[in-house]
Amino acid sequence: MKIRDLGEFGLIDLLSRRIPAPSARVLKGIGDDTAVLKPDQGKLILMTTDMLVEDIHFSLLYTPFRSVGWKALAVNVSDIAAMGGLPTAATVSIGIPPRLAAGDAEEIYLGLGECAEEYGVDIVGGDTVKSPDRLVINITLLGEADPDRVVYRSGARPGDLIMVTGPLGASAAGLYALNNKIAAGEGLVRDPIQAHLFPRARIREGRALAQSGYVTSINDISDGLASEILEICRASGAGCKLDAEAVPYTVGIANMSRRAGVTPLRWALYGGEDFELVFTVKPGGADAVRAVLKEIGCAPVTVGMIVNSDQGCVLIENGRKTELVAGGYDHFRE
Amino acid sequence: MKIRDLGEFGLIDLLSRRIPAPSARVLKGIGDDTAVLKPDQGKLILMTTDMLVEDIHFSLLYTPFRSVGWKALAVNVSDIAAMGGLPTAATVSIGIPPRLAAGDAEEIYLGLGECAEEYGVDIVGGDTVKSPDRLVINITLLGEADPDRVVYRSGARPGDLIMVTGPLGASAAGLYALNNKIAAGEGLVRDPIQAHLFPRARIREGRALAQSGYVTSINDISDGLASEILEICRASGAGCKLDAEAVPYTVGIANMSRRAGVTPLRWALYGGEDFELVFTVKPGGADAVRAVLKEIGCAPVTVGMIVNSDQGCVLIENGRKTELVAGGYDHFRE
Repeated sequence: MKIRDLGEFGLIDLLSRRIPAPSARVLKGIGDDTAVLKPDQGKLILMTTDMLVEDIHFSLLYTPFRSVGWKALAVNVSDIAAMGGLPTAATVSIGIPPRLAAGDAEEIYLGLGECAEEYGVDIVGGDTVKSPDRLVINITLLGEADPDRVVYRSGARPGDLIMVTGPLGASAAGLYALNNKIAAGEGLVRDPIQAHLFPRARIREGRALAQSGYVTSINDISDGLASEILEICRASGAGCKLDAEAVPYTVGIANMSRRAGVTPLRWALYGGEDFELVFTVKPGGADAVRAVLKEIGCAPVTVGMIVNSDQGCVLIENGRKTELVAGGYDHFRE
Repeated sequence: MKIRDLGEFGLIDLLSRRIPAPSARVLKGIGDDTAVLKPDQGKLILMTTDMLVEDIHFSLLYTPFRSVGWKALAVNVSDIAAMGGLPTAATVSIGIPPRLAAGDAEEIYLGLGECAEEYGVDIVGGDTVKSPDRLVINITLLGEADPDRVVYRSGARPGDLIMVTGPLGASAAGLYALNNKIAAGEGLVRDPIQAHLFPRARIREGRALAQSGYVTSINDISDGLASEILEICRASGAGCKLDAEAVPYTVGIANMSRRAGVTPLRWALYGGEDFELVFTVKPGGADAVRAVLKEIGCAPVTVGMIVNSDQGCVLIENGRKTELVAGGYDHFRE
């Protein structure tokens, strides 16, 4: 079925069917000038947005349409996780090239609907337009948080431990496997590919960290560990020591990095899109934080420490100190 | 200055300077994983989004960059107006083609900032990415409204008058002038061009209508009067009689329509982007509504009446009844 034959309103009808039924907080969803939401009294509102552009953020050569939909929402959910919040409602804008089939657009909304279901997000509106060349999708997500439980980037203090919620580099390993057509099954590639195409947002972990009272800052790892730690240090007016040997990987990541001829550390530091959380913990709080995360099946790993700003931001590898640099993707330089 | 030389973060710094300082409702704006907002207790949250794509929604052949920024926000503000709400906070996602100069992007944010200032909108976050070909901008806007003062599309009842807040067809007239390089000054083109490039959203009017207690439905006229009235009728389970002779124009619109060889009615019904409000008023409420609008300098015009659904939706022109059809732009058929 061609999108042209459905027309704009036929397409919107088709796509709306892939979206979960709205919850009680939605007084008006799709079908008026704006959505109308009933906020939980006493909560703060979180708001975040991400735009994904074809051939910049993903290639349709290896990205299934279902993944485009899932990921467009998941990257936003991850930002809510990094504040210790809960996601609530989203709008979805999509620019669809005429070459797409109606079924392709439906697959995008299938992935989107699955992600919305997984994280309890109401899709409350959007804009469905034509794009001459490239597929583009923009999601804006609201969340809520308790006023005394929002965790900013800026709270890290010298002496705090730096921890991550899980292994890093999986998304970069998956991207390498997809780019090089390494089939699932060979060298445990399935998990990295899954991590790249259908990333999980650490909502429960972010929530537990914020509630613990010991966590002084959180970032989600969207641009690589290096860039995220540097953001925390800059916002907090602090330095850091990052222990290269402590950074955790899975066997699948390590295997793939050997095939690619790079170190897994490179992927962890600069690969991005892992959507694990990096966070800092007050001195003496590590055991309590480990305990609350263990309850939800998460085993955090300590990868370094916050230090005074005059000590700078350094990476310690084989006993050698080097300056920690961001090295992530710059949209306008590359 | 090339955007390439600034890099992503240099560009974000440059653009942020064009954005008005945040109000007290913004606990955290640009610079963390999400914005953090303090909602007004007891209000409902409105949420709307619009995506504008180059060569679909506007052409850079005749659209100044400042207009792209203004309009991208104003179209969203207009949706909030159509609920009787007040706009509060917005996120701005922009996909920038590498051919643009840094000054072009800055002009977009200048227009955006002016519109934000005009309507009291806090720009609280966004996403600044590269787009390979076309400029694309997506804004999501939040608003607030009193729970008993939100006006939906669905409240129109037989006997209600249909009114509009002002003359229609100005935006289509301006688009014609721009497309045909008719300079300002000739035949009063300046106002239509201004209406097309820098549309005003009827926030004060929407607010006054919602507070009046007599208004049963509101739409903003983004897709032409025909399409908007039909939406109200569909949502309300009603029909309508629209009086062609009653539809208001300015002299500038009428002059331009003569040059274009079309009737101004055609532009009013199908042109779109006028962003006046069309609304329905309970029997006996017209004088009160006129009085509250007069206080804010608005002279509404009655253009028809809501009737029973079995009478259908009709246009009455020179005593002749024809079926009212939508005829707006369909993104995927055209």
